[in-house]
Amino acid sequence: MKAEIITIGDEILIGQIVDTNSAWIADQFNLNGIEICQITSVHDEHNHIVEALRNAAKKVDLVVITGGLGPTKDDITKNTLCEYFNTKLVFHAPTFDHIKNRFSKLSIDLNKLNRDQALVPENCTVLFNKAGTAPGMWFEKNDTIFVSIPGVPFEMKYLVEYEILPKLLEKGQTKAIYHKTVLTQGVPESMLAEKIEDWENALPKNIKLAYLPNPMSVRLRLSAMGEDKSLLRDLVEEQIAKLEQIIPESIFGFDKETMAEVIGGLLKINGKKLAVAESCTGGYISHLVTSVPGSSEFFNGSITAYSNKIKENILGVDAKIISEFGAVSEQVAKEMALGVKQLLNSDYAIATTGIAGPTGGTDEKPVGTVWIAVASKKKVFVKKFVFGNNRERNIIRSSQTALQILRRIVLVEQKNNRPKVIEE
Amino acid sequence: MKAEIITIGDEILIGQIVDTNSAWIADQFNLNGIEICQITSVHDEHNHIVEALRNAAKKVDLVVITGGLGPTKDDITKNTLCEYFNTKLVFHAPTFDHIKNRFSKLSIDLNKLNRDQALVPENCTVLFNKAGTAPGMWFEKNDTIFVSIPGVPFEMKYLVEYEILPKLLEKGQTKAIYHKTVLTQGVPESMLAEKIEDWENALPKNIKLAYLPNPMSVRLRLSAMGEDKSLLRDLVEEQIAKLEQIIPESIFGFDKETMAEVIGGLLKINGKKLAVAESCTGGYISHLVTSVPGSSEFFNGSITAYSNKIKENILGVDAKIISEFGAVSEQVAKEMALGVKQLLNSDYAIATTGIAGPTGGTDEKPVGTVWIAVASKKKVFVKKFVFGNNRERNIIRSSQTALQILRRIVLVEQKNNRPKVIEE
Repeated sequence: MKAEIITIGDEILIGQIVDTNSAWIADQFNLNGIEICQITSVHDEHNHIVEALRNAAKKVDLVVITGGLGPTKDDITKNTLCEYFNTKLVFHAPTFDHIKNRFSKLSIDLNKLNRDQALVPENCTVLFNKAGTAPGMWFEKNDTIFVSIPGVPFEMKYLVEYEILPKLLEKGQTKAIYHKTVLTQGVPESMLAEKIEDWENALPKNIKLAYLPNPMSVRLRLSAMGEDKSLLRDLVEEQIAKLEQIIPESIFGFDKETMAEVIGGLLKINGKKLAVAESCTGGYISHLVTSVPGSSEFFNGSITAYSNKIKENILGVDAKIISEFGAVSEQVAKEMALGVKQLLNSDYAIATTGIAGPTGGTDEKPVGTVWIAVASKKKVFVKKFVFGNNRERNIIRSSQTALQILRRIVLVEQKNNRPKVIEE
Repeated sequence: MKAEIITIGDEILIGQIVDTNSAWIADQFNLNGIEICQITSVHDEHNHIVEALRNAAKKVDLVVITGGLGPTKDDITKNTLCEYFNTKLVFHAPTFDHIKNRFSKLSIDLNKLNRDQALVPENCTVLFNKAGTAPGMWFEKNDTIFVSIPGVPFEMKYLVEYEILPKLLEKGQTKAIYHKTVLTQGVPESMLAEKIEDWENALPKNIKLAYLPNPMSVRLRLSAMGEDKSLLRDLVEEQIAKLEQIIPESIFGFDKETMAEVIGGLLKINGKKLAVAESCTGGYISHLVTSVPGSSEFFNGSITAYSNKIKENILGVDAKIISEFGAVSEQVAKEMALGVKQLLNSDYAIATTGIAGPTGGTDEKPVGTVWIAVASKKKVFVKKFVFGNNRERNIIRSSQTALQILRRIVLVEQKNNRPKVIEE
């Protein structure tokens, strides 16, 4: 089944609010095998709404109209729907009783505007809005279903979940779909595409691949559509298993997992603890780790050492090393990692030192230069990276890269300890 | 001038991402007197994109197309544009040099996909994308302007701000506009509206006021539209000067300033340094502070003490205090602040200890309970807050609230020291 979402209201078009409703509806429909072909936001304006309805009706089986149903006079949706469906507004007694009850509970008197909310187009099926006063409306015209619901998020959600989706399921209007997103880190999008080109070209026709890059990672989303959900899942999982053979080192997780969650899981398996010493990342690694619920089980704490004195006095970095090699150096990163590991009595430690920018760079060490060290009980790994000129992105990329290095080291060491448990 | 935004890409249509780009563009355009008539999200699909372009061209003077310009093969926008504008892709040497430079800085070799990003439709004007590799493109056809830009938010923002808006202004397609946003904190929106009602009613007709609340502050945006930008600026500044007389304590900054930047400015005036000890905020305060360029001038560092042992061993909190009052207590917050101030040899210190959730709450100390302490050379201020159940929001709100308390204390102490320099 194909659908379009039409949102009515000026707030979105002047950028006053972000249209989160459409994303929510799209996600819910997608999970139910309904493909959203288009999302259209239009003004509270008669001709514009009619045009959007006409264009949508040509293309899809289902049109979901949100917004424009409040009691105030800028809301002209209902009258426009009457014209489009060639009908008139009539009084709907059950809706009026519902509105009356809600107002009496709040000890507020009904006014004309509230009474008018009980007027509905004569040829619609009323969708009971338990969450608010404006009813939902269901129309059918030339094999297209139209539903009109309020834009208030919790009312919209109620009507989609408890009225629209059950009615569609009842009518047998859904297809099976299965999605899975593979999370990769450390390989830029274009290089990744080259590495997996043969695999991508050999994907079954009913699996679609999408590249979704963000500053933290490149996500690969596989979507399969068909009749039988469990068959689709098997199909997608089979392709992901093949992908894991091609880029085993780049994949760190799936769907909505974060790198910190994945690391948390690995550390908890073996009862290991992490500590962090941050210079250029300034607390962001610590924030990413502690964003994971229950992170105290695998995280001891961190030191943000924003001055050389703290690197020396708290982390125990030798002042001579700083003066000889500079604070942004392999040697200092290494000493920071070893220092914080010991200070916070941990099994693993991450350290970062670099030039986040926008100023502070030199020819030898330009803005974006970052040394990352990861220490375990066995060794210290240190590597230099040169990111870009943007402070915020340098902080994010340094942090994510540091966590990725930690993940790889933990994986390898746990693999060596327990070779048959974790396959890399 | 009327405009439509067309976003290309399946991520929005399957609800995987919320379309924040369109809201941002709509807001920027609105501030520049460009009316957005419609926002349309379509698939990465040739016919669908062409249809959206045709429909838009009938209605508006400017079509902004975002997304679909990545190097991978799900991106068909450029070829579709070529067909629509009846042209072909040609090699654009300056874009290629720019891509080559970006990659060489990262020490990554160019592949064919990267090279192809330097191909642009022959009849477009290339908009230089300093923030990324995919260039923006500007077309004109039958009195309608079309611009195509990447969907990556910071690249999109760069191109709108530094290429598209200046070009429109140059062509006389936008009006002179001046806007300034007043950042307030500590007074809820409805109370604020009451306090400034008379001022608001007396605003000149060509100044528009918008309330932009978010969880931690209420922003007041003044927009003036007219012919002469410097006159508009004077007009707005005059009104803001009046506003500052009415709510002097609530205003903490202007436009895009952050609380951390404002604090940084205050601390730098007097050459003071800050230290932070975080438990429930887990490094987020440190991250907010170090997000400010040049923060090493006023920030020494922080300790994330995620275990009681670290609170005791590093911050010097008395173990007896923890066992008597619990880690989430007034006493521990106070000791943490004093401890980190001394340890990191600072003038001011913030400490947080609380239950971020989602688990770990008790009847006496429910999830969301947070103690915040701010220590100066003169005293320690400690206060309990009870936020909500959401871990992420609890971390953010605790952090912002802690910074706000620090700002007030620094202001008062500096006012007492130098009464004629800083007026509160």
